[in-house]
Amino acid sequence: MNQSAVTVLGLGPMGRALAGAFLDAGLRTTVWNRTPGKDGELLRRGAIAAESPEAAVAASSLTVVCVVNYEAVDAVVRPGAVADALKGRTLVNLTADTPGRARDTAAWAAEHGIGYLDGAIMTPTTTIGTPAAVFLHSGPEDLYQEHRPALDTLGGTHTHLGTDVGRAAAYDIALLDIFWTAMAGYAHALAVARAEGITARELAPFAKGIGAILPPMFEQGAEDVDDGTYSGEGNPITSSVSSMAHIVETSEGHGIDASVMRAAEGLARRTIGRGHGTSSFLRITETLALGTA
Amino acid sequence: MNQSAVTVLGLGPMGRALAGAFLDAGLRTTVWNRTPGKDGELLRRGAIAAESPEAAVAASSLTVVCVVNYEAVDAVVRPGAVADALKGRTLVNLTADTPGRARDTAAWAAEHGIGYLDGAIMTPTTTIGTPAAVFLHSGPEDLYQEHRPALDTLGGTHTHLGTDVGRAAAYDIALLDIFWTAMAGYAHALAVARAEGITARELAPFAKGIGAILPPMFEQGAEDVDDGTYSGEGNPITSSVSSMAHIVETSEGHGIDASVMRAAEGLARRTIGRGHGTSSFLRITETLALGTA
Repeated sequence: MNQSAVTVLGLGPMGRALAGAFLDAGLRTTVWNRTPGKDGELLRRGAIAAESPEAAVAASSLTVVCVVNYEAVDAVVRPGAVADALKGRTLVNLTADTPGRARDTAAWAAEHGIGYLDGAIMTPTTTIGTPAAVFLHSGPEDLYQEHRPALDTLGGTHTHLGTDVGRAAAYDIALLDIFWTAMAGYAHALAVARAEGITARELAPFAKGIGAILPPMFEQGAEDVDDGTYSGEGNPITSSVSSMAHIVETSEGHGIDASVMRAAEGLARRTIGRGHGTSSFLRITETLALGTA
Repeated sequence: MNQSAVTVLGLGPMGRALAGAFLDAGLRTTVWNRTPGKDGELLRRGAIAAESPEAAVAASSLTVVCVVNYEAVDAVVRPGAVADALKGRTLVNLTADTPGRARDTAAWAAEHGIGYLDGAIMTPTTTIGTPAAVFLHSGPEDLYQEHRPALDTLGGTHTHLGTDVGRAAAYDIALLDIFWTAMAGYAHALAVARAEGITARELAPFAKGIGAILPPMFEQGAEDVDDGTYSGEGNPITSSVSSMAHIVETSEGHGIDASVMRAAEGLARRTIGRGHGTSSFLRITETLALGTA
């Protein structure tokens, strides 16, 4: 067991990027993937192929797993031979899934004497090993500090969010929520623009302008939400629903599905119905917490 | 009738900002609002109060109207006395509404011998008169060039999008679509984060990071959509739905409404069902155009 050794389970695009960064940093890197043939390039760069997942985890004090979801994690690490081999070692799970499953996996690890950290990778495979990578971690602080030198070789910024092991997954879920919802809005805008004879390339420079105003809106909005102020001065939620209704009308007038905006407009109208017409749009955060209408 | 004179109809927050910028630029500025008492500060700064909308438009070669929607525009400008007074003059409508209503208003203006330009203001009232303001215009090119000196006094960047008078409204709708959908995603992310014990201020720095990656994604995505390529390399739509399902599950597990993400996930799943599982998420642009399921 070598302190400068690391095992990577899962050699999809992200797993390969992680293993490549460990190799570039000079760590003894053992790799394994459920389906063979994904390790060719890594082996040429000096990686060691393990015969089995139990052999792979036995080769290093630290194992990093990054597969499609926690069901796939379970299939690899929960069989008895692998769990036995992990005992006394550390498993860092960089697979994306829910906070609940992160906590469940941590409980399983604790039962089996396995050190467990949960993490999330917030940036694409191409950022791994570069300053642009963003990693979130949660779980025991001492375990994080122990393995930080190895994790740091993955590049970018690493943030330990706390000892609640579900916290990295919770941040991941919330941030992906913003990302995919915004991308759904962009796709819809492009569909409406096309129906109006506007190409995506024509809209893009202005769309980028909208993207650029979001970060300051997010910052200001966070204060509104934490403090419960929701000042709608200059832009009350009644104005928002007027915009939203125009978007739905234009979209549906072209036969374009407006289900996402209809859902958002419904939340805004329920918020007004709750007596908050002079609040800012972000007051819907409270309405969301009341559940489905 | 003075070429350096302008009339502003509608003195809500945006109308007052526009009139203020005209005054700051030294233009003879006549103002009118349906309900009285909104012009006090403007009159102190040199604005002229008109007794009626017909008197207001008769005072200038250029009238700018900015009210809540085109129903409100119609109520102000379509009565016979106002339409008669506008004859031979130019009306610039900076009110937000749909492309269809912009074209309808232009047809009415043409019937009454009124020069008509339609526009959209993409930035908040606080940007008016500053370099940060963004104005979109559409309609006859010669009319736009004639009034450009007056419009330029409103500050910021002005883009003439073409002679199709609905084009400014179409861009406006598409850009507001991106904005409000993204804000709905942020509100939902904050609701989920709160349920996981994460404050909005804790999430905000990371949310800003997500906001910062959107503009390059928008630019790359525009090429995908215009060219019909939708390369899903490294991030196919099957991965997107996996993320989306995690978000829905986490949200609903906390009793939080997930209607927006459910609608987006449904579009992604329909896109996979159409045989595009290896495409990028933006392939939903095509599915949207097929209408509601």
